[in-house]
Amino acid sequence: MTDDDSSLSPDTARDVGVVAPADFVCAEPFRFELGGEIPAFTLRYETYGKLNADKSNAILIPHALTGDHHVAGRYAEDDRKRGWWDSLVGPGKPVDTDKFFVIGVNSLGGCRGSTGPGSLNPATGAPYALDFPQMTLGDMVRAQEKLISSLGIRRLYGVIGGSMGGMKAMLWATLFPDRVGRMILMACSASQNAQAIAFNEVGRNAIVRDPGWCSGRYAAGEGPRNGLSVARMMAHITYLSDRSLDRKFGREKHPDASGADPFGIEFQVESYLRHQGRAFLDRFDANTYLYITKAVDRFDLADGRPLHEAFACVQARTLVVGFSSDWLYPPARNREIALALLRAGKDASYAEIETDAGHDGFLLPSETLHRLVRRFLENAR
Amino acid sequence: MTDDDSSLSPDTARDVGVVAPADFVCAEPFRFELGGEIPAFTLRYETYGKLNADKSNAILIPHALTGDHHVAGRYAEDDRKRGWWDSLVGPGKPVDTDKFFVIGVNSLGGCRGSTGPGSLNPATGAPYALDFPQMTLGDMVRAQEKLISSLGIRRLYGVIGGSMGGMKAMLWATLFPDRVGRMILMACSASQNAQAIAFNEVGRNAIVRDPGWCSGRYAAGEGPRNGLSVARMMAHITYLSDRSLDRKFGREKHPDASGADPFGIEFQVESYLRHQGRAFLDRFDANTYLYITKAVDRFDLADGRPLHEAFACVQARTLVVGFSSDWLYPPARNREIALALLRAGKDASYAEIETDAGHDGFLLPSETLHRLVRRFLENAR
Repeated sequence: MTDDDSSLSPDTARDVGVVAPADFVCAEPFRFELGGEIPAFTLRYETYGKLNADKSNAILIPHALTGDHHVAGRYAEDDRKRGWWDSLVGPGKPVDTDKFFVIGVNSLGGCRGSTGPGSLNPATGAPYALDFPQMTLGDMVRAQEKLISSLGIRRLYGVIGGSMGGMKAMLWATLFPDRVGRMILMACSASQNAQAIAFNEVGRNAIVRDPGWCSGRYAAGEGPRNGLSVARMMAHITYLSDRSLDRKFGREKHPDASGADPFGIEFQVESYLRHQGRAFLDRFDANTYLYITKAVDRFDLADGRPLHEAFACVQARTLVVGFSSDWLYPPARNREIALALLRAGKDASYAEIETDAGHDGFLLPSETLHRLVRRFLENAR
Repeated sequence: MTDDDSSLSPDTARDVGVVAPADFVCAEPFRFELGGEIPAFTLRYETYGKLNADKSNAILIPHALTGDHHVAGRYAEDDRKRGWWDSLVGPGKPVDTDKFFVIGVNSLGGCRGSTGPGSLNPATGAPYALDFPQMTLGDMVRAQEKLISSLGIRRLYGVIGGSMGGMKAMLWATLFPDRVGRMILMACSASQNAQAIAFNEVGRNAIVRDPGWCSGRYAAGEGPRNGLSVARMMAHITYLSDRSLDRKFGREKHPDASGADPFGIEFQVESYLRHQGRAFLDRFDANTYLYITKAVDRFDLADGRPLHEAFACVQARTLVVGFSSDWLYPPARNREIALALLRAGKDASYAEIETDAGHDGFLLPSETLHRLVRRFLENAR
């Protein structure tokens, strides 16, 4: 399919406006899959649209590696920054909040309001740091289930996720098969592959070898800033593509390149990457980065079985969308999910978006993607 | 072309045996392209085979980013480690040292015996460190020309290089057109692209943000060991491929994975990468890494012109070889070189090796590659 990027939203599309996050507090102990327990936890979340009377129109949107609960809208009238999937979610948009009640949630282990390694450990009064139990994506999904139940929602109309968000959607549909009606998976994979583990391992090494890490016991706002920044710079390259970088930056020199500092900025692409690394420090915590990259590296839905057997219990109808230039979770890995679902006798389809945007393609407005999502959600509702 | 890997060398192929490096000392000042000068320099090199009477059988093999002069053979009878292109170079091998006089040379700026930022600055008695002038690949080639002339060689039979070695071969053929008879370029590009600059920039950031770097003034054997190791781990991923990593490691757990250290080694691929990072510290210098990555990032043969115009002066016959799974310098960038040479009216051909070995494909034994190289060198000699 060709992504023509034209007329991305009908004229009737509006944004969800000013939103505010809420906190769900689960006051019961939570046991982790790999062992360990915390006495209680908080998940920060946002909702858009209205839950209908029979609570059948809820759509959950779990985030990717470094995303959060702020999926759509803005925090103030003059807030120029919108939620990370504002192009997709809103009144009249493909995930239409005039029809659906949409929930964004910051993952367990996160650093944007949910309980994670930076939260206070009630047993010590100090941050958990490395005393926070090791995590799996299944832990994140089981924590989300507590939130969904607390909202009185028995069955989700759908779960939609890209990248690690797609992996969480698959876990929803396999851990809680009778509670997910549809899932849309974008730019993801049924297991973390060796190359993706390898990149994550380099990022973790950059962080834990930074003297500022202090075995995870750094003060809030301090910590391994150099290591986290280097990890982000590297990861950011894997979200793009050779072609998009060539198109955006090519070999263009940075206007401030003076040559005075021999290893200062010479090319535009260097300035862009350094900015990405710096900006990340303001919104992300190094220990959370370590915990979440380990959780995604452990993700392997098949776990030794043929993949279609792992999908045997699925009840959800599924749309899988791959992105042609995604080399982190390439189209073949997305197609494999749809094929395994079909082999398991499930209702599944696969579409591929032709784009040079790389892995980040799922985050960008695209007429083709929007049409696919809208039709899949509204078809034979 | 399919790489069948069978019968890699005829039975008559032997290795070059025990070799020893030599030093070429140029006692004249050397001016760098971007400014700056050093009063003299040394290049460490090795030769294999015999220079014939009319000195017409010399083949130069410039190395890639972190290679050196030790192309073939071993340093002692019981030395298990061979030169980095021992599969290609030797008596009866594709670059046949019974016929050719082969020269390997450590680049100017290197850290394996040639003058570089780790060498003593005669003006101060201390290492140059950041007082070493900034470099281009053209500087390295112009320094090599002094070595070749000192050996009494007016015209090289050929220059063969992969990756950055191929870039240096192209510079030989354009800076000294009447002195290169043939060139073989493998897994390279006519200019450094934005993605490759981006990865190098992350590596440099890992190094210069390591407190051990000390603005380049670290003691020999010390320095930014964490940063250099992280830079190498990351770069190493870019030399392989998604498929080869899956095939070699997949999601295999490391036997020592205990879970005691939450961010210790869990997967085999992590152990492999950490080993690569560690081993690199024993053979490479951080400042040289900074200088050489900058030099390759500056490489742009066309420099604003159409590429075929940059090749107008070339006299060499050219074979370009791309590797199907190379995503650092993908096949299309290699093919582009051959097409531009043809457009400039030169004798050029392009071949593509089907392999999942990624960029490192050019370093690995391959029946197809060996046949291509042998035929190209011996054809109508």
